[in-house]
Formats: sequence, structure tokens, C-alpha cells
Amino acid sequence: MSITKPLKGPIVECVPNFSEGRRPEVIKVIMNEIDSVPGVKILDLHSDSDHNRSVITFIGKPTAVVEAAIAAVRASERLIDLNKHEGVHPRLGAADVIPLVPIRDICMSDCIDLARDLAKRIWNETEVPTYLYGFAALREDRIRLEKIRLKGFEQMRELVKKDRKKRPDFGGPGLHPTAGASIVGAREPLIAFNVNLRSKDLKVAEEIAEAIREKNSGLAGLKALGLKLSSGRCVQVSTNITRTDLVSPYRVYELIKGEAGKRGVSVAGSELVGLMPLNSVVMSARDGMMLDSFDQSRVIELNL
Amino acid sequence: MSITKPLKGPIVECVPNFSEGRRPEVIKVIMNEIDSVPGVKILDLHSDSDHNRSVITFIGKPTAVVEAAIAAVRASERLIDLNKHEGVHPRLGAADVIPLVPIRDICMSDCIDLARDLAKRIWNETEVPTYLYGFAALREDRIRLEKIRLKGFEQMRELVKKDRKKRPDFGGPGLHPTAGASIVGAREPLIAFNVNLRSKDLKVAEEIAEAIREKNSGLAGLKALGLKLSSGRCVQVSTNITRTDLVSPYRVYELIKGEAGKRGVSVAGSELVGLMPLNSVVMSARDGMMLDSFDQSRVIELNL
Repeated sequence: MSITKPLKGPIVECVPNFSEGRRPEVIKVIMNEIDSVPGVKILDLHSDSDHNRSVITFIGKPTAVVEAAIAAVRASERLIDLNKHEGVHPRLGAADVIPLVPIRDICMSDCIDLARDLAKRIWNETEVPTYLYGFAALREDRIRLEKIRLKGFEQMRELVKKDRKKRPDFGGPGLHPTAGASIVGAREPLIAFNVNLRSKDLKVAEEIAEAIREKNSGLAGLKALGLKLSSGRCVQVSTNITRTDLVSPYRVYELIKGEAGKRGVSVAGSELVGLMPLNSVVMSARDGMMLDSFDQSRVIELNL
Repeated sequence: MSITKPLKGPIVECVPNFSEGRRPEVIKVIMNEIDSVPGVKILDLHSDSDHNRSVITFIGKPTAVVEAAIAAVRASERLIDLNKHEGVHPRLGAADVIPLVPIRDICMSDCIDLARDLAKRIWNETEVPTYLYGFAALREDRIRLEKIRLKGFEQMRELVKKDRKKRPDFGGPGLHPTAGASIVGAREPLIAFNVNLRSKDLKVAEEIAEAIREKNSGLAGLKALGLKLSSGRCVQVSTNITRTDLVSPYRVYELIKGEAGKRGVSVAGSELVGLMPLNSVVMSARDGMMLDSFDQSRVIELNL
């Protein structure tokens, strides 16, 4: 549904990641499923053929968002076969990760309830087993996405057979034979921000990713992976900024640029997957220009 | 008046510059005069003791903005004596420049009418003569502010005696003995953006200002001055970005940083006088991070 009037009341954002970035016709079907639910609005699609992955960003009323997410998982279960999927990004499911994010007039505890309801209904209605992560996790060792996903589908479908502790929260015990499992959660807004380097040396991207991670860079909540784009034209440092209240995308860009420079490599450009919060834009402008006292109160339109 | 509820209907911005940046008690009186008019909202005060100049940014309903501007000029006429004023920034009046800017639901031709009405009323009600500039200019040689102001009060009070063509549009023929003349106009939003350099050499700032002006830098509508801050701690490149639709503050910062680097000088920081439009913040984030496809549609809150 196309909505041109403003959305009122509580708004949740959903940012499902699908393991398909090369067949636009498949993504189109999934997008249509989401779009056909009244009360949701698609804001962005980011398809990447190197990652062979697509990230759809949509917002809407809480109940509508849950319906749209289930419809999208059902379509991905039908259309994506992980046995035939290759890409540089780790993945466990056809619909891989499905985070819910509180945007307006809704608190995290409501999003946790929504995520748990969504995870249960995905198993009941599509036969894709689900794990819960982030604030919606039911076990402490499942708070972090990477601790659930490990090396992805091929590894996990074997592990669940041997180790009860690896089994899904809903459904299973085994993974779905073609759609794997989906990881549903609730989280704060996050920025998925990638920087491409003028180099074909994966080791350079991996070294930089290692150097800028939270424990090494000092930038709170920064996650990073070094990837080689399968088109082969360059390598990429792929990051998640989780403490958007503290760390601007510009700071991450500057840090990567500096680390690349030390290795004689220059930056080819950067890329935002999905959207970013307004304050991250303001903080990036501030940090990029050494404009110390700059904040939202200094933006004309934000005072009207 | 403090307004907490949103302003409705047409909104005009007024950014008067006063020749006083060292006596906060004087600026406080002027601010109170503006604030006492119902229907206006003060967004920013920027006082600079080096420039000995204060810039107040306020918005409101068109008629309220005109009333507040007249009240502010009246107070400045009473409290500021240009014969005792020293500062690095050129100035012609106690209330030096008074631009009106269309912000919402109002067009430039309405702002031109408002500016002409304001200029006439300032003379009638405060005995400070006025010139019209920008889109409100009545003569082609008065479109550009600097062609009216020339070297400022001391030069102009002599020139108006000898040259009829230099006389004010309203009032005169001479300037006000202590308050000079005010230059009233209508213009598009403009960004006043200064970059401080770690150098005490005025020549460096002047050379950079010269190098980055529109005709040399290729950045459309960019104006620049090299100034020495009277506190003596550093020099500054003071700019006006007039084509905010084309040139981001980040581009200007980067250009100045590059020119400074060529001269072995580093940037100490930058400074925004007043406010900037939302799109300039978005463009700065884009340019600073080489985030080519970034625009307002990728900002979460701007989709609600």
C-alpha cells in the first residue's frame, strides 16, 4: 500500500535481511507482499549482488508490521533455496535476520513482545524455525546475533542435530531444508555502513576491521567485518554502528580512512544500507567539519 | 514571547546583525525587545567579541517579524554608538544588516514587499536611514550588500555628503550620527560559516579567502573574507554560502582545509553563525563520507 498521508500513533521499524541479492524478480515478490499489508510503508531496499543479500526497511503500525514480516518470510521460504545461495555475507536463513526497532510512541518492551509473537507465528504459519536475539532473546547466549548464526546455514544444520543447545527457540529441532531459520529480535536503531577501499587485498580489509572494532578503536559498540566483493573490483569494511547516540558514521569513516592510509590504500566511497537516524546525520556534519557546538537546534526546519 | 506550540501558517526568518558583541547587557535589551512581540520565536544568538558583532536569528509570522525588527532597531539606535565601535567585521549601522528570508508558505515576492515596508518604517519610526539590498533592492547597484556598505560607517558618512548616488533609499540625506544606516533586504537562506586556522598570519587567511571565492574555487556563490581575530589567537576565513542548494558547508570546510594545508597551516575548528537548512546538513554528511546516494529520504525521522 502506498501511504502519502503521515502515519499516526505508535511506529515500529522492521529491517528484514533476505539471502537474495541477484534475482530482482524474487525481491520484487517479497516487496509486494510487504506492500500489500495496509498500514506499512516501505522506505528502502538495498540489494547487493556481492553479498547476495537484500535489506528492506519498512515502518508501520505494530500489528501491521508483524503481518507484513510474516508475509515476507512466507514468500522467501517459497522462493529462496540456501543450498543454491552463495555470497560473502554470513547467513542462516532465506529470511535471515528480522529486527524490530521502536521509532515513535512505543517502548522497547512492546517491541520485545512483538518480536516474540512474530517469532512464534513465523514457525506456526510458515514452518521456518526461529531464534530470538537482541532485547527479545530468551537466553543470554542468544543476545548477540553472531553467537546464534555462527558460520551460517551449512554449519548450523549439522550442529542442531548433535547439540540440543543449538536448537531454535520456536520449531525445529532441525532447520528448514531450504529456508534455514530466521533470527527475530528487538533492538535500538542501528546503522549499517560500509566503506569500500581501492584494494583487492582481503587481508587489508580484515586488518582494518579488526583494528576498528570496539575493543581496539575505542568507538563504543562498533562491529566490523572485512569482505571481498565478489565482483572482485574492491574490498570492503562492513560495519554496524550500534551506539548511534555516541558514534557518528563520519567518525567510523574517518577511522577507516586513517587505517587504510597507513596501509597505502585510499577510500573509494561509502554506502549506507537502509536508513540512519536524523541525529546521526547531524553528528556526522558536526564531526566532519569540527563544528563542535552543532546540534539539531541549529537546523532551521527542526524549529518549525 | 516563548512559544512552545508549533508556529502555523507563513513563516519568515529574520537575521539582523548588530554592531555590538562585547556588552551582553546591550544585546539582552535588544533580544528582550524582539522576544516581547507575540508570534515570533528567537532561535539563536551569536555574539562575537572579535567581530564585535551579534547575529540574532528569529522566525515568526510576517507582520510580527516586521514589528520585532523595528523594535530591535529602535533599541540598537539608543544603545550603540558607532563612533565608539571597533571590530574586524565591516559595518554601516548599529543595526547593520536586516535580511528577511522566506521559510514556509510564503514566497520571495512577499518577502520583498515586507522588506520594503520594513525599511520605510524604520526610517519613519526610528530616524535611522535605510538602504534596500538583495531581492528587495530598488537599484541594480544595490543588489550586493558589499556595494552598499563599502568600507562602512566612517567612509559612508562622508561619501553621502558628496555623492547623491550614495544616499539612503529611505531617509537621509546624511547617516544617523551614532547609528549610521541599516541595510534591509530579502534573500534566500544563507549559511554564515567560519573556519579558524592555527596561524596568526592574516595574509594566510586573506590568501585562502581569495583562493576559494566563487571565481577561483568554482564553488557557486561562495563569498569569503580573511580576518584576524582581535583576541590575536588565530586568523579566520569567514564565509557566506549563498547557493545552499549546490554547495555544502563540508565542501567549503574541505576546500579551506586543503588550501591551509598547502601553506603548512592546520584547521583549529569551524563555527556556524545562526542556523543552517536541513538539506545542508544532509549534503555535508554526504560529502564528508563520500556517501553519494545519500539524501533526506534516507533519514528515518523525515519519513514519518
